[in-house]
Amino acid sequence: MSELNVYELLNRKRRGGALEPSEIEQFIVRYTAGAIPDYQMSALLMAIAINGMTAEEMATLTQAMLRSGEQWHLRDSYDFIADKHSTGGVGDKVSLVLSPWVAACGIKIGMLSGRGLGHTGGTLDKLEAIPGFNARLSRKEFERCVANAGCVISTSTEGIAPADKKIYALRDVTGTVESLPLITASIMSKKLAMGASALILDVKTGSGAFMRKYEDSKALAKSLIAAAQGSGTRVEALITDMDRPLGVAAGNANEIVETLDTLKGRGPSDVEEVTRAQAVRLLVMSGQFDEASAEKALQEALRSGRAYAQAEKWIAAQGGDPMHLPQPRETIEVKAPRSGFITFIDTYQAGMFTVDLGAGRKKADDVIDYAAGVMFDRKTGDEVRAGEVIARIQLGKSSRDAEALRKQFLAFVQFGDAPPAARPLVHEHLMQG
Amino acid sequence: MSELNVYELLNRKRRGGALEPSEIEQFIVRYTAGAIPDYQMSALLMAIAINGMTAEEMATLTQAMLRSGEQWHLRDSYDFIADKHSTGGVGDKVSLVLSPWVAACGIKIGMLSGRGLGHTGGTLDKLEAIPGFNARLSRKEFERCVANAGCVISTSTEGIAPADKKIYALRDVTGTVESLPLITASIMSKKLAMGASALILDVKTGSGAFMRKYEDSKALAKSLIAAAQGSGTRVEALITDMDRPLGVAAGNANEIVETLDTLKGRGPSDVEEVTRAQAVRLLVMSGQFDEASAEKALQEALRSGRAYAQAEKWIAAQGGDPMHLPQPRETIEVKAPRSGFITFIDTYQAGMFTVDLGAGRKKADDVIDYAAGVMFDRKTGDEVRAGEVIARIQLGKSSRDAEALRKQFLAFVQFGDAPPAARPLVHEHLMQG
Repeated sequence: MSELNVYELLNRKRRGGALEPSEIEQFIVRYTAGAIPDYQMSALLMAIAINGMTAEEMATLTQAMLRSGEQWHLRDSYDFIADKHSTGGVGDKVSLVLSPWVAACGIKIGMLSGRGLGHTGGTLDKLEAIPGFNARLSRKEFERCVANAGCVISTSTEGIAPADKKIYALRDVTGTVESLPLITASIMSKKLAMGASALILDVKTGSGAFMRKYEDSKALAKSLIAAAQGSGTRVEALITDMDRPLGVAAGNANEIVETLDTLKGRGPSDVEEVTRAQAVRLLVMSGQFDEASAEKALQEALRSGRAYAQAEKWIAAQGGDPMHLPQPRETIEVKAPRSGFITFIDTYQAGMFTVDLGAGRKKADDVIDYAAGVMFDRKTGDEVRAGEVIARIQLGKSSRDAEALRKQFLAFVQFGDAPPAARPLVHEHLMQG
Repeated sequence: MSELNVYELLNRKRRGGALEPSEIEQFIVRYTAGAIPDYQMSALLMAIAINGMTAEEMATLTQAMLRSGEQWHLRDSYDFIADKHSTGGVGDKVSLVLSPWVAACGIKIGMLSGRGLGHTGGTLDKLEAIPGFNARLSRKEFERCVANAGCVISTSTEGIAPADKKIYALRDVTGTVESLPLITASIMSKKLAMGASALILDVKTGSGAFMRKYEDSKALAKSLIAAAQGSGTRVEALITDMDRPLGVAAGNANEIVETLDTLKGRGPSDVEEVTRAQAVRLLVMSGQFDEASAEKALQEALRSGRAYAQAEKWIAAQGGDPMHLPQPRETIEVKAPRSGFITFIDTYQAGMFTVDLGAGRKKADDVIDYAAGVMFDRKTGDEVRAGEVIARIQLGKSSRDAEALRKQFLAFVQFGDAPPAARPLVHEHLMQG
């Protein structure tokens, strides 16, 4: 292997040229080992963030980052094991509903998930609202849970993609978070390090999504799919709506309640529909179902109570007791200030409002107040009467001024005389080309 | 002053937005003080190198960098004091000829100059070929030399633009050297920190120049002029030719000999013409001459021997003895391999060849061999006969294989049957708008 010419490589990327696969690999290896200093990596990250990467460069970067640590190759240990990733949203409990639901259809599923930061909640935070739930599993415990409960959700271990951890920390302080190739490599290096047989990506779009504009969401979906080419993990993506909160509950404990309700067949229809669309794709990717039989199996799992039973088994397998969730100390009702329609809920603002209540983190070391959250009883498109309760703000540990909270809440909700144009819940389905 | 939001500022510059003057100032102050880490500065440098800067941002950056250290404000201490800067070339001894020449016309001139790195020679290296010459003057010694000899050339002191020193070292290892705004701020922060009354910029263009393409050279000239707006130093630029070596001598001791010859009125005509064009502009900028009287005064200074006498006085004032210059140990003649015309000398290659002989530096800590160099007896456009001596390679301390050197030399010289199109020595004159 020839000596890496960091100087020439940085100049080339600055001018918009492409890097060779061996250059990307060596750069990542040497950076992870501390042999390339932060100031050279940050210059490269900025050049990538501005000038982009080719599909080949991005796939190589993803592979180099995943090879910086453990590779679990789970697809070699199972006939079929599924994985799922969401780009994040407000009220997004899809992973929680999906896992036991597909497990109840005989499809094994495992996820290495993350905690929340910023306006979107974290799947692990929601699970940790359950007393006793252990989200920090070793690989052995992870696989034991798959064997016993058919599904598992755990935090990514230290050994998975250490290059990503180091690079992400640097991106966070150098203005290089917003970059399609860097976002792609960060997400996919962790997913491909686990190495499921198939992965469904839930790429959100709209005011509460990481990518608000439809074309950006679609570009991200395509980019994530492209980065997995040749990895051995089959990847598909659904672009789903995040222009309004998903379901009624946004928070942690309240989302667990809504998850279990959905698994009993009496949750909000949007949660069920968005989850079902992803579950169908995983069942079909397993090769054991076509679309029709997948729909039927999922319906049957819900109706029979097997999906809910699977959830109980799974949560117990990870040590959790969902019967004793933390309860809100106080609930503040928000009433419609006028009659008409809710025409828009700025879902980013709704997410940040929920974070402010203590349900999420602004900084990585903030402590979550599991009982805090919001119940969006009426959402975008709903007709309301003046004085009708449209939302319930749930306070956990902290006391707050009710009137001030109501005012803050109503600031991100718009009303009008006519309903807004309808938006589908599932916008588009993308597969490997 | 509001708190600097480095994160938001880096994101903005990444997206192509502009920075506020106060942001640039605070960033430079805090970086110089060590309060902003290298990895954030290198991210900013890469964003600037790719996305550019507005004229206002660039002027602010220049001012911020010059204010990071001492400001001499020399224009406040003299009725008029001139300064000169060259972007560098091969055989470029213009500063050495210019200084005593304009001083002989009663115009004070002082320069804080640099050492050579890469294919271009450094003015200070050439001066240090003179036994005893002291190029490291304190500000007091610098001003005493102006008082006694009318001119001075010294190395930039530690106190001048420390931000530039720190930033330049980082640019060198992060692929951000080639950037018009960063080059501009680096050059002009040092020049404006000295604060002459007037500054003439010699911006070279052609195969041996820092900017080879004419449009790039012109853009640099305009950028340098723009960065000085409002600084109190009047700036003009001449774009001069560097598509062939300037004069006959390229090296260090040999360029001192050619400098003194030129000041005696018997140097190469190109050296005299390029220097005269710049000297005229400085004399005119002083307000004491118009173009015609400047030409006349310069001619008279040369013919009368006063220019040469001024050089002797100046070199003596800085401790130098030009009578005992180091001599080449051996001279290797290069003969024309055919009859015809020299159609092109790749002047970058010619410069690198001279560096290889020991006359320059590839790394900052290389030691100069002052006697080494090349005499270009025939240059681009000259008609030659096969077997005629076209160059003499001067060896200093090191022994070299004569035949190998001749071969290397001829590799960057092209011959043809017809002379190449003529190029003017002075292409264009640019002034503040």
